[in-house]
Order: sequence, then structure tokens, then C-alpha cells
Amino acid sequence: MARLEDFRIEELEVPQPKDGEVLVLTLYLSVDPYMRSRMNAGKSYVPPFEVNEVITGGVVGEVVESRSPAFQPGDIVMGYLGWQVYQVARSEDLRKVDPKLAPVTTALGVLGMPGLTAYFGLLDIGKPKADETVVVSGAAGAVGMTVCQIAKIKGCRVVGIAGSDDKNEYLEHELWVDKTINYKTEPDIRGALKTACPTGVDIYFDNVGGHISDAVTTLISKQARSVICGQISLYNLEKPDVGPRVQRYLLVKSALMQGFIITDYAARFGEGVNRLGQWFKEGKLKYAENIVEGFENAPRALLGLFLGENLGKQLVKVG
Amino acid sequence: MARLEDFRIEELEVPQPKDGEVLVLTLYLSVDPYMRSRMNAGKSYVPPFEVNEVITGGVVGEVVESRSPAFQPGDIVMGYLGWQVYQVARSEDLRKVDPKLAPVTTALGVLGMPGLTAYFGLLDIGKPKADETVVVSGAAGAVGMTVCQIAKIKGCRVVGIAGSDDKNEYLEHELWVDKTINYKTEPDIRGALKTACPTGVDIYFDNVGGHISDAVTTLISKQARSVICGQISLYNLEKPDVGPRVQRYLLVKSALMQGFIITDYAARFGEGVNRLGQWFKEGKLKYAENIVEGFENAPRALLGLFLGENLGKQLVKVG
Repeated sequence: MARLEDFRIEELEVPQPKDGEVLVLTLYLSVDPYMRSRMNAGKSYVPPFEVNEVITGGVVGEVVESRSPAFQPGDIVMGYLGWQVYQVARSEDLRKVDPKLAPVTTALGVLGMPGLTAYFGLLDIGKPKADETVVVSGAAGAVGMTVCQIAKIKGCRVVGIAGSDDKNEYLEHELWVDKTINYKTEPDIRGALKTACPTGVDIYFDNVGGHISDAVTTLISKQARSVICGQISLYNLEKPDVGPRVQRYLLVKSALMQGFIITDYAARFGEGVNRLGQWFKEGKLKYAENIVEGFENAPRALLGLFLGENLGKQLVKVG
Repeated sequence: MARLEDFRIEELEVPQPKDGEVLVLTLYLSVDPYMRSRMNAGKSYVPPFEVNEVITGGVVGEVVESRSPAFQPGDIVMGYLGWQVYQVARSEDLRKVDPKLAPVTTALGVLGMPGLTAYFGLLDIGKPKADETVVVSGAAGAVGMTVCQIAKIKGCRVVGIAGSDDKNEYLEHELWVDKTINYKTEPDIRGALKTACPTGVDIYFDNVGGHISDAVTTLISKQARSVICGQISLYNLEKPDVGPRVQRYLLVKSALMQGFIITDYAARFGEGVNRLGQWFKEGKLKYAENIVEGFENAPRALLGLFLGENLGKQLVKVG
């Protein structure tokens, strides 16, 4: 388990932009489960953080000073930047966020990376059809919540798994999720899933891995699709990740299990953002945010993800 | 582990065909790994055998007497029939086999169900591209051998895993397999695979499951495809099938794992048989058979599959 002592805050001079650069004041930092994987050494799909280097992640900020014709002071921008209050960024690493279209925080949530992750994972790999049963683990996180709603838009029956009754109440009452399971209090997750999915699980959108996923896999239906999006239960694991092998279930059900990383879909981000934005304007896509105030609380917000504290997108308000 | 005492031979009167039926003398019985799964109770993709009922499977036979206009005495036929020396079959359950096109046993092997299994599994799920690395477990079985050859036809580098040096010699010298591993004598299967697949495993055609598959999964490349065709290492297993979970590997590599059953492709069998037949005529598709003589030896031949005794298609010669 990562600890607060693994982080350090340093005070430095505010840097000056050069030609083609802008000075950005951070408004919001995005805190995401994948960042925990970057705290481990070794090859993965994003390079690990380096010890003593600034952490990077999704940031929404305001341009304070610009030496690029593409940006004016006061512009709101989004980019993969450092966890810094002020920083200099190259203009090509930033994109403008229009605060009139939606609250600027959505650029880190439902209209940003988590929204796109839900969109491409569910639609491209899950391929939902009306009346199918979709099970979503980590359902009350930023990705899971969006998956639940897109699945409902597609006419599916949705079963959400989350870690508190409050989260599940939100999923059922605000997001029209059909059934929910509290994995922290339910003693028989497989039994509860079986009751919730009487015709089996057609699509499993997996954000968590581990024994919850083991239970879902035993209930997949013929030609089911398991979308492996995240494995948050493992990111702090020190023992080997061992469980029932899935191959037998995939074989008997002619079923598919596929991992993906959102950057695989970079060429189609425009399509995704447009579609998500349209649903958002039509009121079909809600979102929730959990905002921690203060730059110095960013490490605590990151670690909180692994305690299941957040409902929806976890953000840190800085500027 | 199934035992010879689980089988019984009974002698009965030879039955008489009615209208629309034919009397068939069995020439060859097909013996296949999936038959072992049918010896367990419980739902699977084929119904289990019933205790005290005749075992059924692929059979090539000769029509002895016909009360159907579709067949003449002397015709060679193939069907999913009983393990019987003589039996009555409905004409619609039989298809003619032309002994001039290829030896009749190929209707149970390279031009029959095992060939089709290799064809659709590799091409439809594996989607091989030239220069990709394909690993095949159970490579010296009827399916595996065909997979190796189709992968070579598609220009892939092929690594075969089998259980004896004789089998591996056959794979390398007769079927142009690039590298082989003897899983019974190789102390470090993962290390041997890593050496054999320096750029990772693009396609894994899995006939065996268990720890061999665990090792392959750790070496998959970006966007790899694992075709789950069989899990022969499990069919006699009494303890739970537990191992390293695959989800993390699939996630990090944006990789796919998919099970299938050959009957999923029934609508496309014609395409498959034509293509396999063409490669066969062109000399691009070889096959090997292991033929046990005598009806009474069928149970022993079936159990032998799980000891890895057969090179290529295991058959029992009856008539």
C-alpha cells in the first residue's frame, strides 16, 4: 500500500515561459487509479514515475502568461502535466477547454479520459445489445458510472458493484442502474450476482479484478464479453495474484476477455468526445465528483481511491 | 483420471434399418479430448454421456444395407454415431465421404472436425499476420498439427509445445515448425519460451491450459490473441484449477483471450472444408494418425490421449 510518506512537496521559483510556451496555474488535478501502477518499477503501459521527479497526470488549468499565439491569458486548458501549482507547458501539449459547454472539471471526467475509457471499452469491446445484462465493477468510480449510463442508453440491464450503500443508492436512484451489490457487506457475492443476473452476464466491465471478477466469470453467458479496463484491487498487492483460471469458462461459453488501454483509441478521441458531449447536453449522462481542496492534499486523494472513498471522479482543487 | 473399468462392451443383435435408415459398419472411431469432458456430469457445451448409454463420437463407416435413396451399400459415410460395430443411422445424420479425394480417415482428422477447429480458431480468432510469432500447445495433436501448418502457410514463425522429442522432431522436420519445446523434459518452460519468442507471443493457440498456458501468458506481446481451444490438462483434474490470474497481462498488453467451440462455426463448415481440401491437394497440409486396431481397444485409446501418447489424430480401426 502506498503511503503519504512516499510523497514530498517542494517550493521553487515560478518558472518563466519561453517562446511557444505558456505559464499555467493549475485549477484541478486529476487523481486516477492507473497512477498507482506508475509508482511501481518495471514495464507497463505507461512508464513508471521516477523517484524525486514531479508526478504527472491530467490537469485543468488557467493560462497566466502566454508566449504562444495559440493561447491568451485567462484561457482554460487541459493537459498531461506536472502536479505543480504553476508550471510552464509547451503549447502543443495543451488543448483548450470551453467553460461554456460544460463545467471545466468534466474535461478530466465524463468528457475526458474516464469518459472515453467507458465509451470505447463498452462500445468497442463490449458491443452491448438491447436487453443484454451488463455487470460493472467499480461502478461508482468515474469510469464505472459512465459505463452504467452508456449501457442504459443502449437498452441494457445494468448491475453495478460498489463498496457502500450510499454509492449504490446513487447508482440506482440517479443513474437508473437496475441492481447493485455492495461488495464490502455482501457475504455471498456470487449468489447475489446470480440472483441479479438470472440469464447470466453478457458483458462484464471489469475495473477491479480479484475475487469479484472471479465470481462474475463463473456466471458469464454464451458469447459473453469481459472488458478488462482496470484491476484496482491488485495495484497495492504484494502477494502473487492467483485465482481460479478463466480459460475453462471462456471455452465452455465461447466467450471473450479483452484488455485495453485508452490510448489505443487516440485516433478516435474526437468521435468519443463528440458523442459523450451530445449525451451530456441531452441530459443522458450525469456525473459525480469528489473534490478535495488544496494542492497539499493530492497524495491523500490518490491513496483514498484504493480505500474506495470516492463517488465518481476524484479531483483536487488547487487554484 | 478416467479408468478402463469405466467402460463396458455389450453384445447385441445387429439391428435392422427402417425406411429412411441405413445399416452402417464402423470402419474407424474418432477419439477426441473433448469426449473426456462428456464423462463428467453437469452443463457444458455438449451434453454429458449418460451412464449405461452408448458413447457417441465421430465415426467413419461403410453402408451395408440401405433403406434410403441417398445411400447405396458400399458407400463410405461419416457421422456422429455410437461406438458400435454395426448400427442403424438415419440418412440425414450421415454425409458421404469420397475415398478418391483423400484417405477416408481424414474425414475424422485434417479434413474433419480437428481440421476445422484449427482453421476457424486460428484464422477467425487468432487472425495471423505474416512474421507474427504463434505458439501452439498440444502441437502434436490432430488440431495442433493443423494449426502449426496453417500458421506456416500464413507466413508466421511457429513455436510448438509437445510432450516428447519424437513428436517435436516430427513437428520440426515434417511440418516446418520453427522451434519446439518438450514440456515433459524442459525444466524452465517460461525461459525456453522466452528464448524461442524473442519478440513475444502474438498468437497463442491453447489446447492444454494449466501451467503451460500460465507461462505463455506472461510473454504475450501488445494486442496478442489467445485462442482457447482446449484445456486437456484439466479434464481429469480433481482439485480446483487455480493459477496466476490473466487479467493483468491482458490489460497491460491490450490483449484478447477468446474461447470457442467448433459448432459455433457450423454455418461456415463448407468454406473450411474446401480450403483445407485445397491445401491438402497442394501438399501444404500433412497429417499424422495413430491407429489402434480393434473395437475393444477404443477405451484405452481415449485414455491414452491424456497420457500424451498420440502423434496426430487418434483413431480406432474397427471394420
